[in-house]
Amino acid sequence: MRGMLDGVRVIDFTIAVAGPGCSYFLADMGAEVIKVEKPGLGDDARIWPPYKNGVSASFVTLNHGKRGVIIDMKKPEGVALFKELVTVSDVLVENFTPGTMADFGVDYPVLKKINPKLVMASISGYGQTGPLSRLAGYDAVLQARAGLMSTTGYPDRPPLRAGTLIVDITTAVTAAFGICAALFARERTGEGEYLDIAMYDVGINLLESKFVQYTVTGEIPTRTGNRFPMITPFDIYKTKDSYVYIICAGDGPFQKLCEGMGMPELTRDPRFNNLFVRNDNEPALKEVIEGWTSLYTTDEVLEKLLATGTPAGPVNDVKQVIEHPHTKARGMLVDIEQPGAGTITTFGPAVKAANSRNEIRGPAPAHGQDNLWLLKEVLGRSDAQAQSVLDSGVMGKV
Amino acid sequence: MRGMLDGVRVIDFTIAVAGPGCSYFLADMGAEVIKVEKPGLGDDARIWPPYKNGVSASFVTLNHGKRGVIIDMKKPEGVALFKELVTVSDVLVENFTPGTMADFGVDYPVLKKINPKLVMASISGYGQTGPLSRLAGYDAVLQARAGLMSTTGYPDRPPLRAGTLIVDITTAVTAAFGICAALFARERTGEGEYLDIAMYDVGINLLESKFVQYTVTGEIPTRTGNRFPMITPFDIYKTKDSYVYIICAGDGPFQKLCEGMGMPELTRDPRFNNLFVRNDNEPALKEVIEGWTSLYTTDEVLEKLLATGTPAGPVNDVKQVIEHPHTKARGMLVDIEQPGAGTITTFGPAVKAANSRNEIRGPAPAHGQDNLWLLKEVLGRSDAQAQSVLDSGVMGKV
Repeated sequence: MRGMLDGVRVIDFTIAVAGPGCSYFLADMGAEVIKVEKPGLGDDARIWPPYKNGVSASFVTLNHGKRGVIIDMKKPEGVALFKELVTVSDVLVENFTPGTMADFGVDYPVLKKINPKLVMASISGYGQTGPLSRLAGYDAVLQARAGLMSTTGYPDRPPLRAGTLIVDITTAVTAAFGICAALFARERTGEGEYLDIAMYDVGINLLESKFVQYTVTGEIPTRTGNRFPMITPFDIYKTKDSYVYIICAGDGPFQKLCEGMGMPELTRDPRFNNLFVRNDNEPALKEVIEGWTSLYTTDEVLEKLLATGTPAGPVNDVKQVIEHPHTKARGMLVDIEQPGAGTITTFGPAVKAANSRNEIRGPAPAHGQDNLWLLKEVLGRSDAQAQSVLDSGVMGKV
Repeated sequence: MRGMLDGVRVIDFTIAVAGPGCSYFLADMGAEVIKVEKPGLGDDARIWPPYKNGVSASFVTLNHGKRGVIIDMKKPEGVALFKELVTVSDVLVENFTPGTMADFGVDYPVLKKINPKLVMASISGYGQTGPLSRLAGYDAVLQARAGLMSTTGYPDRPPLRAGTLIVDITTAVTAAFGICAALFARERTGEGEYLDIAMYDVGINLLESKFVQYTVTGEIPTRTGNRFPMITPFDIYKTKDSYVYIICAGDGPFQKLCEGMGMPELTRDPRFNNLFVRNDNEPALKEVIEGWTSLYTTDEVLEKLLATGTPAGPVNDVKQVIEHPHTKARGMLVDIEQPGAGTITTFGPAVKAANSRNEIRGPAPAHGQDNLWLLKEVLGRSDAQAQSVLDSGVMGKV
């Protein structure tokens, strides 16, 4: 079975999270992704925890299925080699601070001349334009800058970030989306594209209706913990062993909840018999619901509630997620055999395609492992020519 | 200037957030998106707050630039009309609970026969397969189920959801990515595709390295507020008027911070002179930093810190985000002239393309506004034939 991006060559000139994330999505779909790293340490993420036998499992998660080469862009021969690679590639992804590619002498105006069909995506914290464009991008700072933190947390405590790199990851997906749209257009027009993808813009997209809440009503969105104040119940409720989330956006789901709790009479209780009074009497309803949920384990609560179709679910920790049968059934547990580390179990792709192969294709590259392959197989050097390039040090220590 | 998806016709048979989000991204890129709604209310999101002159600004944000038609799938004539539309379309996006499309008689095996080149994307809470597949998807429940909440919040309080619909929005982008990859592949192979996009799988992708933290070390990730305990400083710090986020992932950035604070001597303080001792002495360092930041406003703090290149940023509320010059400079403030509502200011697309037009193309459709257009312009009915279809009630009340 072929991959949707078979025959597409991608230069992954990125580090950290958002850039490498974008290009591994493309690798899963069959693109030939060549990760270009600097000499020395290479991508900073190579030393990020957690480790398996000294190998960074974060790096493996973000860089599986890629080739790995070293190019020293501080040497003119390195820049020339990079440009040569661009001439035989379809896509270039980079995530340096804006201005850096120009400093290297390989910004889009230069590269477009040597490969007009190139699809180049620049991923950055704040974009290539605008007053903040020169600032580096950090997920947590972006969650803060783009307003996401102001909506997360409790009314009685400061703004809070989401616990994972949500802006980085969503930016990676957004860049992959833009690249595939540009590849599609290129098939029809023959023309390349330059994409400017900013974590800032992605963060603003993640605000969704909180954005128009301000522009339309003038209200500044606040923090409401796990509550959504216009819907009740909409919260987590304590069980014997953890918590369940219960959401009843109307009288229908509320009736299902009451049936599941064995309290059908609640739907006729004047404190709870429509959405408006339920919102008004939220503390009383929470006491009733939590009085019931706390009698049972989370599994027991959900068995009763899901039987009636109540919108509810467990608040899982990561271990529970990984061990849940659904995770395996969805192909979300993937073993990577990583040389030097052994088996690293990571998660699979979120795009499931019936007619194409979309899956992790192999381990992450060792730093510079494919230098010789690049020179001979991609750039057509003879053995002697290739050896001469390697000896020059432009692809790292000899 | 053309759009990257010019000439692509998309049937948007979705409601709520993740489905409509996916298809408006495609509309911004030039796809002709035809939103198919049921008779009566249509998409539930039509009545979601906030409102401008009684029109849902959430709905407008999620459905701008689309055509709008009504098809009653409970009538055989409605199903026939839907199938006819499929034969002349490129993409179908739907986000019903798995099984519903089969109940309508329009699941992929059926549609593939009438249009083998169709790219169909099914977006759901838990995917088309697996033990949880029949459950409906709610963003907050998915944040809970997929483990994201377990990583968000404080050690001394329960798990917490991110304040916006992060799983919905990231799922929308993921589906758009898959659709564009499938459209690209179709240009090369001539074959259609079926995509199964689950919020659950997307939620797991958003866990990023927290996933391998468990599989590799056996540690269950916990909640650490705004701290990242292996890096210090990495937290928010109180200013006179709000908070700033400061992250110094190594000695270089820490030196910049100390310079910015006018305390270069801190870099030689034995409590703070390397990452490990800074982690050990985090409370003492927080006191020093917050002692300084609290003397100034956020703007003053950032002026001093950004001058030295310290990784730092303000913790903005949504008003501050919308009013920041960078937001306008990035094209992230877009006025939609929405009939019946007036101007609604929403955010622009996160994919910025230099050689193509990617922008909001117009307002959201009124319910069924394009029924006649569909019949005549897309399906080639004569005036009399079109009127007869409308009179039948299969496209809503006559």
